[in-house]
Amino acid sequence: MKDRRTFIKEAGLAGLAGLLPVNILSASDLEIDKAFKNSNPNAKWADGSRLVVSVSMQFEAGGQPVNAESPFPQNMQKGFIDLPGDSWYQYGYKEGIPRMLDNWDKLGIKVTSHMVGSAALKNPDLAKEIVARGHEAAAHGMDWATQYSMPYETEKKIIKDGADAIKKVTGFEPVGYNANWLRRGTNTLEILQELGFKYHIDDLSRDEPFLLKVKGKDFAVVPYTIRCNDIVLIEGKNFSADQFVRQVILEFDQLYKESEKKRRQMSISFHDRIGGTPQMVAATTEIISYIQKHKGVSFKRKDEIARMAYEDKSIIRE
Amino acid sequence: MKDRRTFIKEAGLAGLAGLLPVNILSASDLEIDKAFKNSNPNAKWADGSRLVVSVSMQFEAGGQPVNAESPFPQNMQKGFIDLPGDSWYQYGYKEGIPRMLDNWDKLGIKVTSHMVGSAALKNPDLAKEIVARGHEAAAHGMDWATQYSMPYETEKKIIKDGADAIKKVTGFEPVGYNANWLRRGTNTLEILQELGFKYHIDDLSRDEPFLLKVKGKDFAVVPYTIRCNDIVLIEGKNFSADQFVRQVILEFDQLYKESEKKRRQMSISFHDRIGGTPQMVAATTEIISYIQKHKGVSFKRKDEIARMAYEDKSIIRE
Amino acid sequence: MKDRRTFIKEAGLAGLAGLLPVNILSASDLEIDKAFKNSNPNAKWADGSRLVVSVSMQFEAGGQPVNAESPFPQNMQKGFIDLPGDSWYQYGYKEGIPRMLDNWDKLGIKVTSHMVGSAALKNPDLAKEIVARGHEAAAHGMDWATQYSMPYETEKKIIKDGADAIKKVTGFEPVGYNANWLRRGTNTLEILQELGFKYHIDDLSRDEPFLLKVKGKDFAVVPYTIRCNDIVLIEGKNFSADQFVRQVILEFDQLYKESEKKRRQMSISFHDRIGGTPQMVAATTEIISYIQKHKGVSFKRKDEIARMAYEDKSIIRE
Amino acid sequence: MKDRRTFIKEAGLAGLAGLLPVNILSASDLEIDKAFKNSNPNAKWADGSRLVVSVSMQFEAGGQPVNAESPFPQNMQKGFIDLPGDSWYQYGYKEGIPRMLDNWDKLGIKVTSHMVGSAALKNPDLAKEIVARGHEAAAHGMDWATQYSMPYETEKKIIKDGADAIKKVTGFEPVGYNANWLRRGTNTLEILQELGFKYHIDDLSRDEPFLLKVKGKDFAVVPYTIRCNDIVLIEGKNFSADQFVRQVILEFDQLYKESEKKRRQMSISFHDRIGGTPQMVAATTEIISYIQKHKGVSFKRKDEIARMAYEDKSIIRE
Repeated sequence: MKDRRTFIKEAGLAGLAGLLPVNILSASDLEIDKAFKNSNPNAKWADGSRLVVSVSMQFEAGGQPVNAESPFPQNMQKGFIDLPGDSWYQYGYKEGIPRMLDNWDKLGIKVTSHMVGSAALKNPDLAKEIVARGHEAAAHGMDWATQYSMPYETEKKIIKDGADAIKKVTGFEPVGYNANWLRRGTNTLEILQELGFKYHIDDLSRDEPFLLKVKGKDFAVVPYTIRCNDIVLIEGKNFSADQFVRQVILEFDQLYKESEKKRRQMSISFHDRIGGTPQMVAATTEIISYIQKHKGVSFKRKDEIARMAYEDKSIIRE
Repeated sequence: MKDRRTFIKEAGLAGLAGLLPVNILSASDLEIDKAFKNSNPNAKWADGSRLVVSVSMQFEAGGQPVNAESPFPQNMQKGFIDLPGDSWYQYGYKEGIPRMLDNWDKLGIKVTSHMVGSAALKNPDLAKEIVARGHEAAAHGMDWATQYSMPYETEKKIIKDGADAIKKVTGFEPVGYNANWLRRGTNTLEILQELGFKYHIDDLSRDEPFLLKVKGKDFAVVPYTIRCNDIVLIEGKNFSADQFVRQVILEFDQLYKESEKKRRQMSISFHDRIGGTPQMVAATTEIISYIQKHKGVSFKRKDEIARMAYEDKSIIRE
Repeated sequence: MKDRRTFIKEAGLAGLAGLLPVNILSASDLEIDKAFKNSNPNAKWADGSRLVVSVSMQFEAGGQPVNAESPFPQNMQKGFIDLPGDSWYQYGYKEGIPRMLDNWDKLGIKVTSHMVGSAALKNPDLAKEIVARGHEAAAHGMDWATQYSMPYETEKKIIKDGADAIKKVTGFEPVGYNANWLRRGTNTLEILQELGFKYHIDDLSRDEPFLLKVKGKDFAVVPYTIRCNDIVLIEGKNFSADQFVRQVILEFDQLYKESEKKRRQMSISFHDRIGGTPQMVAATTEIISYIQKHKGVSFKRKDEIARMAYEDKSIIRE
Repeated sequence: MKDRRTFIKEAGLAGLAGLLPVNILSASDLEIDKAFKNSNPNAKWADGSRLVVSVSMQFEAGGQPVNAESPFPQNMQKGFIDLPGDSWYQYGYKEGIPRMLDNWDKLGIKVTSHMVGSAALKNPDLAKEIVARGHEAAAHGMDWATQYSMPYETEKKIIKDGADAIKKVTGFEPVGYNANWLRRGTNTLEILQELGFKYHIDDLSRDEPFLLKVKGKDFAVVPYTIRCNDIVLIEGKNFSADQFVRQVILEFDQLYKESEKKRRQMSISFHDRIGGTPQMVAATTEIISYIQKHKGVSFKRKDEIARMAYEDKSIIRE
């Protein structure tokens, strides 16, 4: 497993080109310092940005348990399979991820894809393509399993298995982690550190990254979102896609204003079978295009954000 | 029962005129090939369309079980009938279907009407009129019964009874099937094939039709929708009718864009007692009129889509 | 109790002036016929209207049971009173009804107020004022009680008690009825007829009034709404007030279009504590003002609509 | 504890300047009378306003019970902590309150902050800053505990402890009270009076303040809101932030119109972890900016409103 220093090196800002698996980035500490110096007066980030936007693309479909929750009534009789519910999940890898991948290219942004291990194993070509197109592969457990109540060794195994599956399939070694339903347990951070992970996202407490001490060593938190997240908003019925657009744009407007004076990060999250529908991709295009009209905003993968957090002397430490 | 070849012939693209029951269409394979050749460069469909939109009109009211779910509180005491709930369903055949029929004529489109057998028997004139106006009658079970857990023979009987009822009442022999709540069981496709059906819609996994192998023979899937479907969105309170308009238009915008390069199908679904209200018909008019302003889009019955799927050498096979 | 003939006479279209209790209207059958003859070519109603809009204002607050449902969590411990929930209901008679009454005057329309008997007894001055301002008082039970499962005599008593309370307090003898949650039982219509009622509203099956046979005699149905009804849409969280505006306007647009060729009735309903909030009254003003810009639309009390139904030879009979 | 007279003196309208804890205001009764005389013809309030808007900022995060409700599924296994839910609450004091405080300054308004005692103890600097910036600290219990079912002495203790904690931390002695979920019990008002409180807000029955008799002495009610309240509207999924804007603006429009002839109060409420998100602060800015364009509207703390209620001879008494 990599030590922190190596991660910093690997997670450098350059080198995001071609279709090779890119988890080894080459910018040196020195280059970051230069970025700081050259940054515009509003810059609050190492790369000169005033606001950093991080987009997630959850790759889970195919790894869900039998009769996992879907927009269908949750009233299946025991012993039978919810076939239309299953086809709803299949949509995630047959249409959703491919559509979003094309859209990220068109919009010119790189995202972080949290991959359930078994989903990556089931559709290895798709997992590979995500990485080949320059996106980050982050770990998300081996299966959809309630993680917070697992004994230490069980939890460690499912985390490691999930990361190994991603590495095996894509060649990309995940350094970021997202627990099932964000529900990590009290051992999770230690396990992640032991396994060489560099950051987790299961925290909603801030609009900027920060560092924790885990067993006396730094560990980065790149905060996630549930309010600019298709899973909470949509579920087939709560919000319409156009409401999602308006709400996320309000979120951006305020963070952009604040970013004049303060380091701000905005997180937006999509799931294969929800964010990958035509209506949500149309909504996403509206959102991202709106954001891209503003100066000083950059879109970053979460490994890049974590790296900037580790490097930054003014980072919040808890 | 018809064999595949006969179906292909019957489901041809011409002949959609007059007020006779129209389930026998006359275009030959040859004509389809010509259509391919003459198609514009964006055409991805046999008929020259770049995007095909399929509208469903569920005819279920009158066939619902006692005290079926409605916008009223689901707390009836045992042994009593939910009379206002019942009148809510009656609206489906007294106002809803007639209003939609007029609207389809005004908009100039033909739709697929999935008919619950007992609903067609209860209101035979209305069922007849649907077919007489050029719409497709598809089967939807004999009653609202949970289908996925039925033994083979029971399931076969309710499917056959429902189709026979439609045939008897309308003269139209259904070739398409929709299970109760989309929940087919593991025997359903075999049964459908045995009974001579040519396609089913209980699959949400793609935005285009595809072929399955059932007992070694092709069987078409014309995917359905739950996100452009009044039953999930409305239920009396989740979405307002104007939200439905905005969301479905976002869906169209993206699929239309994609259809430049790829075969795309869009599905929109309405239920007698929901989609047939004045507000939803006004919403529908907005949606369809918007879509009709775009070149290369055609509205097709699902039997026509299935036929194109069988004929098309580039169709996806699973 | 009045016989049908007397009711017809009483429910005439003239005489809606001054601040006296007005349930006795004086137009003769002859005058109605004249109205038919003089009506413009689009007229589908006896009074020359092409579309009739009926607004309900439910007067229930004060008559609700202890700890009745409200936007507060429904988790009160037994033996305690939900005081804020109670104050939410008080809003209905302290602010809601008075605000709506002012608004109806400003908009120049008369409405039907379904009054829970005990609510009228608790706030007699308010009940009186409703009638004094020219609105119709209709019966709505004595208390909020589940009516559909009552024995015949019990049901008859609560209906009669509620109507008597209204008569006693306002001087207005109700001829219209609305059951608790619309849930009449199988005896209700007979009881209503015995008690001299002339119409009920607990039916959602049509967008126009119609006549039933009850024990061989005509009984009018003036259909109600749950989709243009604040109670289903709002409940404190489902719809925002502006969504309500847009949805109801879509409803009107379609019915207005249809009313060129067909008799159409639109129903809109408000409850004291919901429709009487500032936001909903602002929404209502938008809706009614929009409707009033259209020619050939009239706003009618339900007793007037029932009378037109009885008089009209082309009325639907079921 | 202060008697009523002293409170009236203390709660005067002047003296809201600097960064000292300001709960002692200096306007005399005489000055209020003068304000009445000098008021414009539309003025319905002692200070010359025609409409008074009161904004609440609930400070509860950090004081919530273990696994308190959050947008996460409420299905935690016993014995485990909902860590992401916990981080959702942390957002309230790490981002939410600081962001709102900056926004109130920018908008130039003072608000009432209902503080859970344990929340204030956990983040004393933040509690202090709220008061230092000129906002009112009001009591909100010591912890999140169901208050309505407590025995008299238990209830008195939690109310007193909460108020004492606020006083200790901020130097501000609360005179206003808000029960958990607004659910006061039948003893609450007496206890509040004994403890020297001057008003409570747990009543939704009017759009203006009023006085009750509690043990023969006046006690002010400054009505609260649940319909212009982020907690009911948002919960992570019911309303989008832009819907909240539109609904609250409709509320204002109507109350402003009514305030020409009648004393009107509008209440808007925000919670640290909900109203403090970027999207909701952007929404709030839209709302407040819209309101501030109207003449004769003032923003007031609830202690100021209570004082005006006590002084006003035309106040409603129940």
